[in-house]
Amino acid sequence: MRLANRDGRLLLLGADGTRGLDVAEASGGRFGPDPMVALASLDALRDWAAGQDPAQGAPVDPAALGPCVPSPASVFAIGLNYRDHAEEAGLEAPKAPMVFTKFPSCLAGPHATVPLHSERVDWEVELVVAIGRGGRAIAEADALDAVAGYCVGQDISDRALQFKDRPPQFSLGKSLDAYGPIGPALVTLDEVSDPLDLGLTCDVGDERMQDGRTRDMIFAVPELVAYLSRHCPLRPGDLIFTGTPAGVGSVREPRRYLAHGEVLTSRIEGLGELRNRCERAD
Amino acid sequence: MRLANRDGRLLLLGADGTRGLDVAEASGGRFGPDPMVALASLDALRDWAAGQDPAQGAPVDPAALGPCVPSPASVFAIGLNYRDHAEEAGLEAPKAPMVFTKFPSCLAGPHATVPLHSERVDWEVELVVAIGRGGRAIAEADALDAVAGYCVGQDISDRALQFKDRPPQFSLGKSLDAYGPIGPALVTLDEVSDPLDLGLTCDVGDERMQDGRTRDMIFAVPELVAYLSRHCPLRPGDLIFTGTPAGVGSVREPRRYLAHGEVLTSRIEGLGELRNRCERAD
Repeated sequence: MRLANRDGRLLLLGADGTRGLDVAEASGGRFGPDPMVALASLDALRDWAAGQDPAQGAPVDPAALGPCVPSPASVFAIGLNYRDHAEEAGLEAPKAPMVFTKFPSCLAGPHATVPLHSERVDWEVELVVAIGRGGRAIAEADALDAVAGYCVGQDISDRALQFKDRPPQFSLGKSLDAYGPIGPALVTLDEVSDPLDLGLTCDVGDERMQDGRTRDMIFAVPELVAYLSRHCPLRPGDLIFTGTPAGVGSVREPRRYLAHGEVLTSRIEGLGELRNRCERAD
Repeated sequence: MRLANRDGRLLLLGADGTRGLDVAEASGGRFGPDPMVALASLDALRDWAAGQDPAQGAPVDPAALGPCVPSPASVFAIGLNYRDHAEEAGLEAPKAPMVFTKFPSCLAGPHATVPLHSERVDWEVELVVAIGRGGRAIAEADALDAVAGYCVGQDISDRALQFKDRPPQFSLGKSLDAYGPIGPALVTLDEVSDPLDLGLTCDVGDERMQDGRTRDMIFAVPELVAYLSRHCPLRPGDLIFTGTPAGVGSVREPRRYLAHGEVLTSRIEGLGELRNRCERAD
């Protein structure tokens, strides 16, 4: 299934994402309209969706979509989870996952405009995991059963704010309005070609800035699910931003940050793309 | 008003906290039962509560209470917000609030048992602010109007986990199960004697470990509300853990951590107390 959010209502999208069904309407009120409800009743929703043909539904404008998971109880974000990114940042690869948060109010739709409040705003394309069944102390071997699906995410960061503290606490500088665009849809794992190896890219305008594969994560998705759930219960709808590969702007030579009018395009194989225009905030 | 949570139902407590009314029952379903609903309709609830006499209600066992704000969208936590604590930790006082999170699943009732997963679990008594009206870019002068009230909080920290990263990200080591007891009740600001100056103490067994006043915060509550709301919208029910005064265990000489069987008692003037027994986790 491809599950999206338009005006706070759950949509079931067809495979190419251009058409879809309002789930509450099409199911006669059995599911939704709240997109968060889907995460808690995914098996029943899948059974129902098997009898639907969303590709025959009404046209869907991706620019009208909100974040496919709009109100998670927790957003876990993982720092330095690709060796090449840790290296370019001049930091040691972590021995256990480094966990911070993006406050949930930063979640935004796949075409959200990104306001630039400083001249040091940077990109990080990331695979985002949405928790389905969840649980506590989940074994690595069972981890993907606890996951609902994946979407594309951008962990946009105001580097000035991210690194202002001693020791730096990353969360606030990564939580400004629209600094967490996700989508375009939550793609359930049964539709993901290889859930542990997907290509991901990030372009600024026509320039390719990041080009990686999720198999290069230091802590793969099952390890992250197992590690987090040993410390905190994972609940339906929780999100995990799984870290970014090399190519961010703040450690390039010369440094490169997002500028007014630039479009940031983030893609993951089989999951679709985000297109976020940047605008100077006044 | 003093608003508490028993089994996910909103209670209105009398001034001494020993008796109270189930708000949904007493209001004929007009308010609650979800304790989070109260935060979004505080003025109407206050008008209704003015006609009630909770001190004549049924006995309330504080050990049966859950966290007075059980499911905030965001929990903001402020690091190094008392100069004497920054000094004892050997860290520079921050120039702007240092913000991390306690993941909401760690919130627990005022008498919750605290599991010790390591030998380096530490205490931090804190004033916790619950947001009422909330908003964006709130002026310091208007900040207290955006606040619903206060409660006592403990920012319990597994120091090993808190400091394992380079640079250390505080959130996960402060988010284990029950590492965020709050309560006993949310006390609305109209019942707080001086909302900017309250005494707060923390005892381990009979030994007083912390004894401070909230007027010694580096960034006072109005500054915190203004600062956070410039970066993220504040929503009804969001919590702010406002930092701890000197006296934590990890920087004492000799170091001192919580041990199996010890009882941690945290008090704030006019807000009541938390009593949390510590137990070795297996």
